[in-house]
Amino acid sequence: MAGLIVAPRARIFQGHDWVYGSEVRKVFGNPRPGDVVALKDGRDRYLGSAMYNPQSQIVARRFSRRKQDLDREFFVRRLGQSIALRERLMPGESLLRLVWSESDGLPGLIVDRYQDVLVVQTLTVAMWQRVKLITNILGDLMQPRAVIVRNDSPMLAAEGLEQEVYVAMGEEPQPFDVQGRGLRFLVDLQTGQKTGLYLDQLQNYMEVARWAKGRRVLDCFSNQGGFALACARAGALSVTAVDVSEEAISSVRRNAELNGVKIDAVADNAFDFLKKEANEVRNGGEPKWDLIVLDPPSFTRSKKSLHDAMRGYKEIHLRAMKMLPVGGILSTFCCSHHASAELFRESIGEAAVDAPATLRLLQTHGQSPDHPVLLNLPETEYLKGFSFELVPGR
Amino acid sequence: MAGLIVAPRARIFQGHDWVYGSEVRKVFGNPRPGDVVALKDGRDRYLGSAMYNPQSQIVARRFSRRKQDLDREFFVRRLGQSIALRERLMPGESLLRLVWSESDGLPGLIVDRYQDVLVVQTLTVAMWQRVKLITNILGDLMQPRAVIVRNDSPMLAAEGLEQEVYVAMGEEPQPFDVQGRGLRFLVDLQTGQKTGLYLDQLQNYMEVARWAKGRRVLDCFSNQGGFALACARAGALSVTAVDVSEEAISSVRRNAELNGVKIDAVADNAFDFLKKEANEVRNGGEPKWDLIVLDPPSFTRSKKSLHDAMRGYKEIHLRAMKMLPVGGILSTFCCSHHASAELFRESIGEAAVDAPATLRLLQTHGQSPDHPVLLNLPETEYLKGFSFELVPGR
Repeated sequence: MAGLIVAPRARIFQGHDWVYGSEVRKVFGNPRPGDVVALKDGRDRYLGSAMYNPQSQIVARRFSRRKQDLDREFFVRRLGQSIALRERLMPGESLLRLVWSESDGLPGLIVDRYQDVLVVQTLTVAMWQRVKLITNILGDLMQPRAVIVRNDSPMLAAEGLEQEVYVAMGEEPQPFDVQGRGLRFLVDLQTGQKTGLYLDQLQNYMEVARWAKGRRVLDCFSNQGGFALACARAGALSVTAVDVSEEAISSVRRNAELNGVKIDAVADNAFDFLKKEANEVRNGGEPKWDLIVLDPPSFTRSKKSLHDAMRGYKEIHLRAMKMLPVGGILSTFCCSHHASAELFRESIGEAAVDAPATLRLLQTHGQSPDHPVLLNLPETEYLKGFSFELVPGR
Repeated sequence: MAGLIVAPRARIFQGHDWVYGSEVRKVFGNPRPGDVVALKDGRDRYLGSAMYNPQSQIVARRFSRRKQDLDREFFVRRLGQSIALRERLMPGESLLRLVWSESDGLPGLIVDRYQDVLVVQTLTVAMWQRVKLITNILGDLMQPRAVIVRNDSPMLAAEGLEQEVYVAMGEEPQPFDVQGRGLRFLVDLQTGQKTGLYLDQLQNYMEVARWAKGRRVLDCFSNQGGFALACARAGALSVTAVDVSEEAISSVRRNAELNGVKIDAVADNAFDFLKKEANEVRNGGEPKWDLIVLDPPSFTRSKKSLHDAMRGYKEIHLRAMKMLPVGGILSTFCCSHHASAELFRESIGEAAVDAPATLRLLQTHGQSPDHPVLLNLPETEYLKGFSFELVPGR
């Protein structure tokens, strides 16, 4: 069997499951991209079974500590475990991520469930090669109306794969509405469209909405309006959603109608919007919102741009703090793995010094439980959020 | 008015509220210990009002950014805000911390509520001097059956204060049982006794108990048995509580009876107990528990002993992981401010590498909401916990 000998001090000896090109001492047995390889240390001790791809920075991804092939039996078992985990953690939910790559022991495979339609992504060569087997098993296990393969991630290029989107089973679904956590969303899973829903945030919509009752809510970087919808449903006095994308704002409007709530949806650059509104308050204007949600797209995709990203976060935090009255709430999220929770929190602290504002922590937020975090794979943890209340009268 | 000039780059310029002795450039107006002093920077700019104590390392604790005296009006307002916050965050609960020092803008004052009995601690000279005023106002606001002043913290020495415990209002209460989060605890608030309840953990008892149903639970360092009781009430198959203190174990037994549940309470050193049980499993014994709770007392009270403390945590984590079957749950807590959440988590990760075990994060735990965390005062955050599940079949 083909395999790799891993160099000493590689991350895999610290419990991680990835082997980088620089950590390979020797390749034996001439494996091809997508093959299963044996991982061994310098003393010929077995470290597990991995997927091989010499074109990727991550040359091998371990998926088992034992001898294991990527066969039908394996996929039936792992997919079954993933599905069972969601049934246990989120009983009754049918809008969720059913399989999340390494976190479910299936590196490079993502399966999202939109009620009776499944969307599959294969982000590693090994998964890409076995997509037919996977969609067949998913068909058996879930009996979906349709399975769409949506390989349109920019991450594919790093694995030497091309983008492709097609219907693997059933018929191309027309736009339809799905329900999750009591909210309804219009989704368009047609091969030509972006879906746009962020399933990892669904739980946080509910967590933030607990404070919305009787408050005037501003949802910045709203995308399709998850926070706005949840807050409106929870009894907010008023809700404003801001997003730079006209498409997102149209979607907020349609979703508001679908949920029977009123949302003032504004197509605007959220940075500029916050700046303008913070200036108005500084010039004596009355605060217009009591609860501000900041859920921007990742400001950084690499460690290099981290410093600039943190400045960006500080700036929007400072503006939001200046816009809030005493007793107001700031809920803020960061979806970049490179910005750690501590670093993100520090940037909020720096803004609080400048504001100046005294903030009481209300809640720490994370990823919805269908995006499990593994202790030994720090990369599985990327979404963090905090809700703070501006403390009165100090 | 008396005051201090604070040196540049002091922590107070980063949003903190404490002034250390080494950060004082000049003392003017000859303040006495316990006096209110004005804080100023080198350019005579006003930074706020603070409590003064030259005998403490922390010479001044700011309690307002404005000119403010420690008078009746101030205490009525701040105590009222503290009480209102609990009513809002924990409606209907009457077993809780009503006032928590800096977090409530009342540095050095702690008030715990055990239904209709209040227990007051004054940990700063300024609060100690004003204890009569404070207990009077608490009497007006809360109409308690009794108010006990319980100044028996070892922290008092650092402020130059002596220990004292007395009944300030009402009659010395006989032992009685209190209810919190659906659990009942026998408390003895008599002046000669330790109360022993950890109010900061009450919420976590409930969070962990959600996974107890049908599981065999081991509560290590159980104290009076909060986790054990909550798990037993939630439908655990069996519950074992281990604590080195005979007094604590007697208390677990009484509390089990009070709650109508069965707990096997063992007086033993939890470190030894874990070692013995882990060895049994290593020698082929069947795992006896599916959910293990580790809630040890702080292993470190200073930064100096941090390294040893982290080794201690790693050791008990490793033992617990070896005792658990696949699918088992480890809930572990750390109440030392010096060991950060990241450091604590790292030590769990190191144990997982040695075990070896793959752990999925189920939940991050913190302090109950009656112990609020302030962003600008990192010292207000000390209790952290994680619940992990051992991932099956990798």
